[in-house]
Amino acid sequence: MTTTLHGRSLLAGSIAQPGGKKFRASNPATGEQLAPDFHEASAADVDAALAAAAAAFSEYRARPATDRAHLLETIAAAIEALGDPLLARANAETGLPLARLTGERARTCGQLRLFAAVVREGSWVDARIDPALPDRKPLPRPDLRRMLIPLGPVVVFGSSNFPLAFSVAGGDTTSALAAGCPVVVKAHRAHPGTSELVGGAIGRALSTCGLPAGVFSLIHGGGATVGIAMVQHPATTAVGFTGSHAAGRALFDAAASRPHPIPVFAEMSSLNPVFLLPAALRERGTAIAQGLLGSVTLGVGQFCTKPGLVFAIRSRETDAFVAALAEQVRAAPCGTMLTSGIRDNFVENRAKITGHSAVRIVAVSGAAPADIRTEAAPGVATTSAREFLAHPDLAIEAFGPFTLIVLAENADELAACARALDGQLTATLHLGAGDDAAARQLQPILERVAGRIVVNGFPTGVEVSHAMNHGGPYPATTDVRFTSVGTAALLRFARPICYQNTPDALLPDALKNANPLGLNRLIDGKLTREPVS
Amino acid sequence: MTTTLHGRSLLAGSIAQPGGKKFRASNPATGEQLAPDFHEASAADVDAALAAAAAAFSEYRARPATDRAHLLETIAAAIEALGDPLLARANAETGLPLARLTGERARTCGQLRLFAAVVREGSWVDARIDPALPDRKPLPRPDLRRMLIPLGPVVVFGSSNFPLAFSVAGGDTTSALAAGCPVVVKAHRAHPGTSELVGGAIGRALSTCGLPAGVFSLIHGGGATVGIAMVQHPATTAVGFTGSHAAGRALFDAAASRPHPIPVFAEMSSLNPVFLLPAALRERGTAIAQGLLGSVTLGVGQFCTKPGLVFAIRSRETDAFVAALAEQVRAAPCGTMLTSGIRDNFVENRAKITGHSAVRIVAVSGAAPADIRTEAAPGVATTSAREFLAHPDLAIEAFGPFTLIVLAENADELAACARALDGQLTATLHLGAGDDAAARQLQPILERVAGRIVVNGFPTGVEVSHAMNHGGPYPATTDVRFTSVGTAALLRFARPICYQNTPDALLPDALKNANPLGLNRLIDGKLTREPVS
Repeated sequence: MTTTLHGRSLLAGSIAQPGGKKFRASNPATGEQLAPDFHEASAADVDAALAAAAAAFSEYRARPATDRAHLLETIAAAIEALGDPLLARANAETGLPLARLTGERARTCGQLRLFAAVVREGSWVDARIDPALPDRKPLPRPDLRRMLIPLGPVVVFGSSNFPLAFSVAGGDTTSALAAGCPVVVKAHRAHPGTSELVGGAIGRALSTCGLPAGVFSLIHGGGATVGIAMVQHPATTAVGFTGSHAAGRALFDAAASRPHPIPVFAEMSSLNPVFLLPAALRERGTAIAQGLLGSVTLGVGQFCTKPGLVFAIRSRETDAFVAALAEQVRAAPCGTMLTSGIRDNFVENRAKITGHSAVRIVAVSGAAPADIRTEAAPGVATTSAREFLAHPDLAIEAFGPFTLIVLAENADELAACARALDGQLTATLHLGAGDDAAARQLQPILERVAGRIVVNGFPTGVEVSHAMNHGGPYPATTDVRFTSVGTAALLRFARPICYQNTPDALLPDALKNANPLGLNRLIDGKLTREPVS
Repeated sequence: MTTTLHGRSLLAGSIAQPGGKKFRASNPATGEQLAPDFHEASAADVDAALAAAAAAFSEYRARPATDRAHLLETIAAAIEALGDPLLARANAETGLPLARLTGERARTCGQLRLFAAVVREGSWVDARIDPALPDRKPLPRPDLRRMLIPLGPVVVFGSSNFPLAFSVAGGDTTSALAAGCPVVVKAHRAHPGTSELVGGAIGRALSTCGLPAGVFSLIHGGGATVGIAMVQHPATTAVGFTGSHAAGRALFDAAASRPHPIPVFAEMSSLNPVFLLPAALRERGTAIAQGLLGSVTLGVGQFCTKPGLVFAIRSRETDAFVAALAEQVRAAPCGTMLTSGIRDNFVENRAKITGHSAVRIVAVSGAAPADIRTEAAPGVATTSAREFLAHPDLAIEAFGPFTLIVLAENADELAACARALDGQLTATLHLGAGDDAAARQLQPILERVAGRIVVNGFPTGVEVSHAMNHGGPYPATTDVRFTSVGTAALLRFARPICYQNTPDALLPDALKNANPLGLNRLIDGKLTREPVS
């Protein structure tokens, strides 16, 4: 296994011609520029990738689901076969520790295998059969059979903060491939080498599985122009994105203004409010402070689920909690952020919050952040609920190790703060004995605000499972109806089709009388694995 | 039961103040203006309706699913209780025959009761439970539980061509109410009296069921201004629409450009291509001609599933089919269209097709359409596949009793025509013994074009059942991922939410350990009605 990088886009199994503008990755922990040069893709490269995806779609979707499952498992094995050089390159490009990257690789490969299992089992296609009723009055009912089929080529934008799990072979790619859609990935500029390595693994897996090379391409690009071109390409049928609100909204607008609009699943921004109820603070205020700081500083605060707002009612226990948190913040180390751009953005947005006349900085890390190591220092500030409600500009995302504590006078003010929140990925409640009534007041409000409600825990650490929902009302995402993490994520890339009076021989296996795939199917409204009698 | 009409909007159970511009319905079969005056809603009325919907949402969604089921059944009974005066008014406003309206009422009430059954059974919420794994390495898994919850207030635009089944208490309203969403309907200007009667029935049903009046409002409006205001109102969370492409796209664009974009389910236009394969024409060309004409002229061609394009390979049998169809068309009667606007549009679009140098009119009805009765005459024309492929402007929708037959030289040209098609609600194949190979070539193409594939039948007559899909790629609809007919339609108005480590007492019943609602739930990826052990 060589890890020599060629620095070019991968177009349906071929390495693109060089020629575009060149760029290099840099190591945020050292400032060092990393070889080799990467070449930005041309408009012709984008067109070639999407034309190949469109051409490969017919064959890819026609293959049995077991072939798709096998592909996902083969990709996982190919990523593992990249070995330590993958982790070393990712570490150099992102500054993320090797231990974290090892865990992220396990998550990425586990995700591929979990989706393989879902595809192999097959019932996700939501097969529904209403057999003919030839004698029904006044009119007979025809035989109707419905299932989900893949949308078509999907464009995926790799995210900066998960160079493996939400990048080239991450959740979006995995769920699109699982659904039966070819994928064209726009590599994130901050980790092009990691992207090339993983892209190569996907290409080899396709070849191993005897699947068309056009099922996957990887585009290195110069930002908005290339990205918008990918979204607006006529062959593109859906878009997955994780990143900033500005970029996500630009892609959404580009997709909505197409002659034929397409869905965009952009996961964009979230403050992940945490509500600390009185009994919880009485019972375990110090432990909550410790857990909260761990969540705020995990990955140097660069998780979309980082808690950026904490709400509590003023009390002696709340004062003690703030003091405990402040003490821990002062002792917390600085951390290297993913890029200097992210660091600068964090510093700027944090300054917008802490520079507000209504906000008081409670504590910052005693360590000085080293510029050459692209570091940021953990910090915490407070404001009052009244000020929070009066100043919506306090509810902005500072993507890094910072959180704002909002102190309410009473439970009603706490509820008013919850009602004032914009769409969020998560909302968290810490409850103690006796907090149930307050929880029952807050929970319905938070259900309208967030896509996941966490009790007595912290929102970072997004499980990849069947019941996960990673999504939420705008501006957390552009489509509250779908998750981008967990097995339900593949529903984003599928659509229903109905067959009326189609002979058994012409039906897809999922809908044949004999149920050869052994799926759970809704027959006349009743779920069963039985054949159609 | 009085049928005196007040002519005003219904705002959360109250009759709006008069004041807006006035308009009257007219009888397309006579040209007669129908009393009383209807009053256009003001911006304040729109705001009042949506504010009431937002306020009612919390209570409505919190009520047990059985209450929603009971509401739907009560609405059905209240519509039936309107008796013959409802049908008489609908007949006067639309020119649709009483027999058709009687059937449509049965369909409307059957639809309400079918959705009630789905809501009462409850498994549509797609409950998923991944129990905690406290001992998992390297990290424990939290308890995760996910289900679908309603989106919020939904704006529904009544359609002209189904004054009952796709209007005030039609498929969009029924599926939104079933999902737990309040509804504000924009009444169609062509049948405001029918709308008022049905809206009143919904209001009475809410009152009977002890549900908040804000769950339903009915707005009479002056077209685009009021409609756009409803779509852009901050409280609106989704939109259902059936109508023209221009209006549907305008609503989609208005929704996409909101500060917080919302989904629009617009069902807009479709040509519903029919492919007649050689053996089918050999076996039963005359019968197909008869069935086709019935489908083309059903409801005077004013169905979104009317076949507007027919494809066949030139042959003696095809000639005979065309001759048989022509003979039947010449003998077919004229019919009263829904409005003079629809009639004028039909005549204009038909002229665009038949006036094309590549098109030959084969037959028109021998009866002369009476202008005072807003009539249109059935007609059929032909062109060649080569011309069809060269002139995309031949593939436009003429919404009325007209179809264009496209004659191909061979099977490859037939397939090329299929590939050239834009998104459609339906595509139809007529097969005989020996057509299987050709069907296997066409079917994958049509799967990418259409939302429903009909074999040896006709696309008109859309069954309301579990397996129906009434939707398709753009421009057939704005969201190919959802159906607007059949029980899956309620998925349009729901979104997932996930509860992490939430105590059983705080969980919705659908997710409680004991499974008190007896739902099918996905526990650790396995479907079961068992409790969580």
